[in-house]
Amino acid sequence: MPALSKHDTLAAATLGAAAALARCSPELVQRLAHIRLLSLDVDGVLTDGQLYLSGDNESKAFDVRDGLGIIAVRRAGIEVAIISARPSAATTARARDLGISHLRQGDDDKGAVLLGLCQQLDIDPSHVVHMGDDVADLPALRCAGVAATVADAHPAVLDMAEWHSNKKGGHGAVRELCDLLLVTRSAGDGP
Amino acid sequence: MPALSKHDTLAAATLGAAAALARCSPELVQRLAHIRLLSLDVDGVLTDGQLYLSGDNESKAFDVRDGLGIIAVRRAGIEVAIISARPSAATTARARDLGISHLRQGDDDKGAVLLGLCQQLDIDPSHVVHMGDDVADLPALRCAGVAATVADAHPAVLDMAEWHSNKKGGHGAVRELCDLLLVTRSAGDGP
Amino acid sequence: MPALSKHDTLAAATLGAAAALARCSPELVQRLAHIRLLSLDVDGVLTDGQLYLSGDNESKAFDVRDGLGIIAVRRAGIEVAIISARPSAATTARARDLGISHLRQGDDDKGAVLLGLCQQLDIDPSHVVHMGDDVADLPALRCAGVAATVADAHPAVLDMAEWHSNKKGGHGAVRELCDLLLVTRSAGDGP
Amino acid sequence: MPALSKHDTLAAATLGAAAALARCSPELVQRLAHIRLLSLDVDGVLTDGQLYLSGDNESKAFDVRDGLGIIAVRRAGIEVAIISARPSAATTARARDLGISHLRQGDDDKGAVLLGLCQQLDIDPSHVVHMGDDVADLPALRCAGVAATVADAHPAVLDMAEWHSNKKGGHGAVRELCDLLLVTRSAGDGP
Repeated sequence: MPALSKHDTLAAATLGAAAALARCSPELVQRLAHIRLLSLDVDGVLTDGQLYLSGDNESKAFDVRDGLGIIAVRRAGIEVAIISARPSAATTARARDLGISHLRQGDDDKGAVLLGLCQQLDIDPSHVVHMGDDVADLPALRCAGVAATVADAHPAVLDMAEWHSNKKGGHGAVRELCDLLLVTRSAGDGP
Repeated sequence: MPALSKHDTLAAATLGAAAALARCSPELVQRLAHIRLLSLDVDGVLTDGQLYLSGDNESKAFDVRDGLGIIAVRRAGIEVAIISARPSAATTARARDLGISHLRQGDDDKGAVLLGLCQQLDIDPSHVVHMGDDVADLPALRCAGVAATVADAHPAVLDMAEWHSNKKGGHGAVRELCDLLLVTRSAGDGP
Repeated sequence: MPALSKHDTLAAATLGAAAALARCSPELVQRLAHIRLLSLDVDGVLTDGQLYLSGDNESKAFDVRDGLGIIAVRRAGIEVAIISARPSAATTARARDLGISHLRQGDDDKGAVLLGLCQQLDIDPSHVVHMGDDVADLPALRCAGVAATVADAHPAVLDMAEWHSNKKGGHGAVRELCDLLLVTRSAGDGP
Repeated sequence: MPALSKHDTLAAATLGAAAALARCSPELVQRLAHIRLLSLDVDGVLTDGQLYLSGDNESKAFDVRDGLGIIAVRRAGIEVAIISARPSAATTARARDLGISHLRQGDDDKGAVLLGLCQQLDIDPSHVVHMGDDVADLPALRCAGVAATVADAHPAVLDMAEWHSNKKGGHGAVRELCDLLLVTRSAGDGP
């Protein structure tokens, strides 16, 4: 988005976040305005949860539009992390593609991983939004300041999360959250 | 799910199974509570039935959420088997990934395969649930204690099965059944 | 389907074709009963029209359920042909997989290809059903006894065809037609 | 489509464009009739925005029906260009497959790229239609004579574009625009 002015980028995010914003309480908007770390699950959030197997070779599909949102959020000064229990070369490649250096794969205890990352980055967990779609994300969702999920999450996660995207995982859910972060940050008195 | 307590896992399954449970008769719930073997078809059940071909190389897509359900069911003491008429290296890899040792591929007569597996495991067929989506599954569905299928199964299978998931094959149908097995087992006087 | 009796196979096809049959005139049912050759387009009919490209390497996705229908139709004595303007190693592999020997790829004039095949097999074009989804199929659809298409065909093909499946191309459309052929053949006074 | 007469091709496009045409003002129809260059974004327009990653290897899926539309538009004398910020071997292969020589990849400033191409081809930007789906396309959409997008574009692009397809990106959106260009060109007093 280098060809877009800062004003244009924010105007576009405002339109992208309009529907999502209407479903946020003023109190949630305040917390979103102070988010310093966006923590993302992979399967079911950055992808639609499908694993394409050709023998032992595994592929998964990422959404270009999610990627543009992540880049815009990082440029606005928010850290972005990927936390996945399932190690995957595709995830590693996608993280590199998007310039995400905080990549944690292969640890089942996502709550502990997220808290460790907060300590390392000196970010209070209350300034973290985690987006996950399944029960393995519940510990991370519980310790994050904002618990977010996708439209097609497991019922237990939809029940626990305080915000969910209108779009499904792997099909623009992350972009919706990124647009919301850009807009609330700009409107609020955030860092 | 090692970071989740047994209580948390069951609470999550209860939410996941709520809609499915509402469609079960008390008698079916009783039979589900005593299931000792979950037998699964591959194409159309663990996948959405698509075969991705690149010349002779074949890929198929599995759902991460189904995998989490299968692992939870196995931990609860239920055996899991995969029975597919179509031999595939992708299926072999997925079974290994999920720790499923009962893998039967390449035999067209799924009824005979299922009965042979019951004998080997010393499980009465009345304690088996088979989930299949097409006419080749009818013999196995007929000899299983519970005949289950997916929302988008062939009409002849939907007509014969006594339970079908709300979700489509390859997109969470197996997870729905796994959550249902976890909850009924816990609530019932099953083994 | 070797584990299914002839009666079971027909009963299943009857359920599979019920919705489709209800949309056929008695006269169309008569013509379907005498079909001797099922001619199929590939992209958009046997697949959903997506070409997966990895550099020059091309994949496409076929539906397992369509394959079971094609095998059943062939066993009932109906010839099956694939006619595609786009040569593809994936199509060649799928045709071999299903035992389809009448495979014509790379000729843009599908009408001429179909008529040549009819001559070779000594089948009158009035005893052919062609299923295609786009304008390149119009010449073949015009010379076939029954012009069939898929639910998501190009408007010009939907306008011209006399029958279309309820399902989309690559997602069970061909199976729907196969079930219909099995049932009308059995009920009619066809060959 | 060599087996179709010019009249048949136009008749088919007329049916394909009927719904789209009904949503165009007479003034927009006039501008569409004079289009000399069709400029297309890749991810989200020629594809549905999914990137299939297998480690560092990237695939994406193109729609066969879009390809037939592009070929027909080129035969009618309209230039076709692909402008993508993301360099991809799959895009290069698809452009070669469709005979598109105006391929610009890897430049973030799509507005400047499009204006440079217009200069090279001696085409006034008012005779260009650009189809893009995300905020990175806004500069190109602003300098094109007609700003077009897909049904599932980012809200900021849907808000700015004057025409959007009924179909989603990667699933026939480009074909819809191609049919519309063929029909308006034929009906109008265009070049």
